[in-house]
Amino acid sequence: MSFTCDMRDVRFNLFDFLDLGRLCEHAPYQDFDVSLLNDMLEAARDTAANVLYPLHEQGDRLGVRFEDGRVKLPPGWREAYETYVEMGWNGLVIPEEQGGQGLPMALYAAAQDMFISANGSFMFTPGLTTGAANLIVSFGTDAQKEVYLEKMLEGQWAGTMCLTEADAGTAVPDLRSSATPIEGQDGKYHIKGQKIFISAGDHDLTDNIIHMVLARIDGDPSGSKGVSLFIVPRMRPDAEGNLSFNDVTTVGCEEKMGIHACPTCTLSFGEADDCEGWLIGGRSKGLRCMFQMMNEARIAVGAQGMGTASAAWLKTLNYARERVQGTRLRDMKNPDAERVQIIKHPDVARMLMHMKAIAEGSRALVYYAAYCHDREMAAEDKAAKHRWNHQLEILTPIVKAWCSDEAFRATEIGIQVHGGYGYIREYGLEQLARDVKIASLYEGTNGVQALDLLGRKVSRKGGMMLMTLLGELGKFLNGPALQGPLAKEVAALCEAQDLLTKTAFSFAQSNMSGDVDYPALHACSFLQMMGDTLVAWLLLRQATRAQEMLTAYLAKTGLAGKDHATQCEDPEARFLHGKIATARFFTHQILPRTQARFQSILSEDRSVLEVVF
Amino acid sequence: MSFTCDMRDVRFNLFDFLDLGRLCEHAPYQDFDVSLLNDMLEAARDTAANVLYPLHEQGDRLGVRFEDGRVKLPPGWREAYETYVEMGWNGLVIPEEQGGQGLPMALYAAAQDMFISANGSFMFTPGLTTGAANLIVSFGTDAQKEVYLEKMLEGQWAGTMCLTEADAGTAVPDLRSSATPIEGQDGKYHIKGQKIFISAGDHDLTDNIIHMVLARIDGDPSGSKGVSLFIVPRMRPDAEGNLSFNDVTTVGCEEKMGIHACPTCTLSFGEADDCEGWLIGGRSKGLRCMFQMMNEARIAVGAQGMGTASAAWLKTLNYARERVQGTRLRDMKNPDAERVQIIKHPDVARMLMHMKAIAEGSRALVYYAAYCHDREMAAEDKAAKHRWNHQLEILTPIVKAWCSDEAFRATEIGIQVHGGYGYIREYGLEQLARDVKIASLYEGTNGVQALDLLGRKVSRKGGMMLMTLLGELGKFLNGPALQGPLAKEVAALCEAQDLLTKTAFSFAQSNMSGDVDYPALHACSFLQMMGDTLVAWLLLRQATRAQEMLTAYLAKTGLAGKDHATQCEDPEARFLHGKIATARFFTHQILPRTQARFQSILSEDRSVLEVVF
Repeated sequence: MSFTCDMRDVRFNLFDFLDLGRLCEHAPYQDFDVSLLNDMLEAARDTAANVLYPLHEQGDRLGVRFEDGRVKLPPGWREAYETYVEMGWNGLVIPEEQGGQGLPMALYAAAQDMFISANGSFMFTPGLTTGAANLIVSFGTDAQKEVYLEKMLEGQWAGTMCLTEADAGTAVPDLRSSATPIEGQDGKYHIKGQKIFISAGDHDLTDNIIHMVLARIDGDPSGSKGVSLFIVPRMRPDAEGNLSFNDVTTVGCEEKMGIHACPTCTLSFGEADDCEGWLIGGRSKGLRCMFQMMNEARIAVGAQGMGTASAAWLKTLNYARERVQGTRLRDMKNPDAERVQIIKHPDVARMLMHMKAIAEGSRALVYYAAYCHDREMAAEDKAAKHRWNHQLEILTPIVKAWCSDEAFRATEIGIQVHGGYGYIREYGLEQLARDVKIASLYEGTNGVQALDLLGRKVSRKGGMMLMTLLGELGKFLNGPALQGPLAKEVAALCEAQDLLTKTAFSFAQSNMSGDVDYPALHACSFLQMMGDTLVAWLLLRQATRAQEMLTAYLAKTGLAGKDHATQCEDPEARFLHGKIATARFFTHQILPRTQARFQSILSEDRSVLEVVF
Repeated sequence: MSFTCDMRDVRFNLFDFLDLGRLCEHAPYQDFDVSLLNDMLEAARDTAANVLYPLHEQGDRLGVRFEDGRVKLPPGWREAYETYVEMGWNGLVIPEEQGGQGLPMALYAAAQDMFISANGSFMFTPGLTTGAANLIVSFGTDAQKEVYLEKMLEGQWAGTMCLTEADAGTAVPDLRSSATPIEGQDGKYHIKGQKIFISAGDHDLTDNIIHMVLARIDGDPSGSKGVSLFIVPRMRPDAEGNLSFNDVTTVGCEEKMGIHACPTCTLSFGEADDCEGWLIGGRSKGLRCMFQMMNEARIAVGAQGMGTASAAWLKTLNYARERVQGTRLRDMKNPDAERVQIIKHPDVARMLMHMKAIAEGSRALVYYAAYCHDREMAAEDKAAKHRWNHQLEILTPIVKAWCSDEAFRATEIGIQVHGGYGYIREYGLEQLARDVKIASLYEGTNGVQALDLLGRKVSRKGGMMLMTLLGELGKFLNGPALQGPLAKEVAALCEAQDLLTKTAFSFAQSNMSGDVDYPALHACSFLQMMGDTLVAWLLLRQATRAQEMLTAYLAKTGLAGKDHATQCEDPEARFLHGKIATARFFTHQILPRTQARFQSILSEDRSVLEVVF
């Protein structure tokens, strides 16, 4: 099967819905326009289809090898990476003055959408390299930028983030890696420690790997206040640019459920006491700096969910269109009735619609989060900047957790539609399920995202971020849509938003009375309620837009008087009808679980807090 | 980590709740008593712990090999199977007069519980052998019983069921395998065709494999009415018992997501036109006969879910008790606060409780279904026999689908509790997830179960089966529990039952008005609603029983005046408190989704039926 992606929905999101054309009227995006962005999308699709997708199944089957202390990727991966970086994808969103292309983040989200749905395992090296480069852009000295940036963006050197240790996973500040100042060398330290679960921690795609390592400088306080960030290259460059080994040893590579072509490494720094690291971002500012990369990574994990859900959906749609099995229900008793494609069975159609809703819902959410970043950049006044920044901040844990959980659900449904074939390797669905499961775990488990949402976002600044976001929802809910053809669906969204507000309020009361455990107990439910509500909001806004476009399109093409089936023979009309159907489905078949969650939270059932296992 | 199983909960189900002691006062179980059943449980645990569990991880890692046209299992599997059959497990529920032990099905469910939680992949050969033997018991001639039964029960020969073909999966009656009468040999046919997805279709555990094959006798009508069942041994025995090759070729073995040590085979019958099969159960009666084995298999698949959920839950509980990470929430800002086991984090405790509820809920459901069979056998009057049979019939698709879906959910939650370690092979959770995914697909996908529930169970006989089951619920709902300490929970169950009845009624109306698609669209939701409601019913009945026992126990032991924590230092008091907590949790945190489903169904949203993808 060849690579497919839903380019029409990608374009609908970027141009018809988010109106990137209008964004490009403002700095820093004034060099771009719709035509150029469209060209970029075409190029991204070509890279996805011709460079990444052909390696997808092979990467799972062959996986990485750990030999003679180094990690080797399957045949063809280095060449693919070279092609990828030649296309300039590593520097897509890095500012132009730093050697990148400075494109809107929303366009990057669309490119990731295609790349990930073509080959999720491939995206670790480029994604982490971009993230590490971005850290150097934000916090590096001119000298550090000089040494690293160009080589990372051009692809000779890769990057990683090194946080986790065996006893410091979720509790990052409990790390034990140490940094000892090297006398007479300002900002230079001897690094010692072991890091685990380092994605793309070692490989043969590039000649050097630049690790961004969290460690504690000798004598600094325990906990988060004593954590600093260091640039620790695997090979250290001297003044002439010659490389010598920097005492970063690859201890091993994990055997995992999926992403077999992504090396998940244990790295040892300074086994021979000769590992040098360069402080970046200031002493004890490590977590603050790393949070920039983590937040980007969390959006990227949401994008991983989105891309995988999209791949699962399109693959399954294709299967359901071709696989013939059984008769229509009403013909069940006639042994000679026509055998039909399974897409015609209502239960299968329901599953397909559920997958479509997840794929399009997560696309809407991820692109919108990226767009919040772009609007923040493009905003001219401070208040507007804050408004968009607040939205991005509160969206980040939701994008990460909702998209990763729902993507796993989408692959599960896709397996189900395939029946027994879903369990067989060659059909590819089970690989997508195995590959995407990691997304709910790394960059902070989804439980941690839920606590982040409650503790650092909703509760902070007197609920300002939540209020900003609900204010955006309010604009839609109080607009004309409530009177339009989607009135019933908009009313359901109003109700969900109301439950959300009530829940947030009840948590605030619990916190004030010193009962922090009760909100924590339901934090995941709250995040899921928010995710469902926001996705319903975005899908309904999209449906409203699609309805306007459809009315105009039907009038223009003379299809207005035709029946639904005839209209749907036209691809554009079918697409727009489909957008409306997705929003309806999501609102009626998925959003109601918000009520179940609300009821659970409000039940005041404390069995979990009281039980002794 | 060594094998663990929750023996207390197993015994609670069998003896404190289902009261097998009382069942054994009636034929055909009068030879047994609680003490003997308890000995059997101990023996089953020993087999699980010492014979099956040591091969569990190894089976996943090494998998089956397909070499020189035959399938080979990993080292040690043949010896394990020999030990297993020596213990008599293959004949546990086969009637004594047929060479088995004739034990209650509920005890078999308990044994399966342990065996599957020790090593699910192992259970295919014994499970299918017992099922095939049972078919011969029910439908075989005396001569057929003479040839096959003893060898199958004693373990020299194994069994399979051969239904699926490449173009006849869900649509079994579309099969193309043929049977041509052999002239002058009554009941003997030449079999020709290819079957796929045959579990335990070939292996080296036994000297012969007896395939139960569906095929169409030449000239018989198309569709289900022309399907007959044949005994097709891989090696055919002559009158002296000598074996010769019966032209059953193993074409290949699938590469699958999990159950790597279960050979899933493509078998070719009669490639050299020399495959002989013996008609069993009468011409064109194939589907009716096979339904017996399928129904048993569907309960067994539910048991696969139950055992896997249980393994995931106990493994995860153990991990959460040992893994130290972070501080208590209220100490978050103190870097020197005590680091605690993750079981003390509310969000982790919630996930554990959810797993416990799935494990204990599916145990309650599977054992109860098995017990319905036993009560049917033991009933003296026809009306009672019907009542228990109706319950088993309507429960079968629910047991299969609910337990398999929820078990997958339990493994997903278990992975989540493990954090990054959940994704790593050596921790074993991801294997459980991969292994159990098959359960929602085979023996009829869960979508097919939902249609079976609606079309063949709820709608049949004027809703008699549903009414029988709801009548059982009514006994509890109208009993004293509504006034007891669980009154709030019982009221919630009343509400769920009410929604269920309303939904069934609305489906009946749709059907009457000729709209079969709308019920089909929501069939899965309806099955899940029924599953949740029935599990809540069983768990609340268990909690009511536990409450009685707890009151007596606390009085007897003098713990009555002590606080909850002190009481829970006593294992029995902790267990009984835990049973009550599980029921509360299930009712408040899981059952409310019934309302969401009801709302979705009643929304009358037809977007799925109208959309053109």
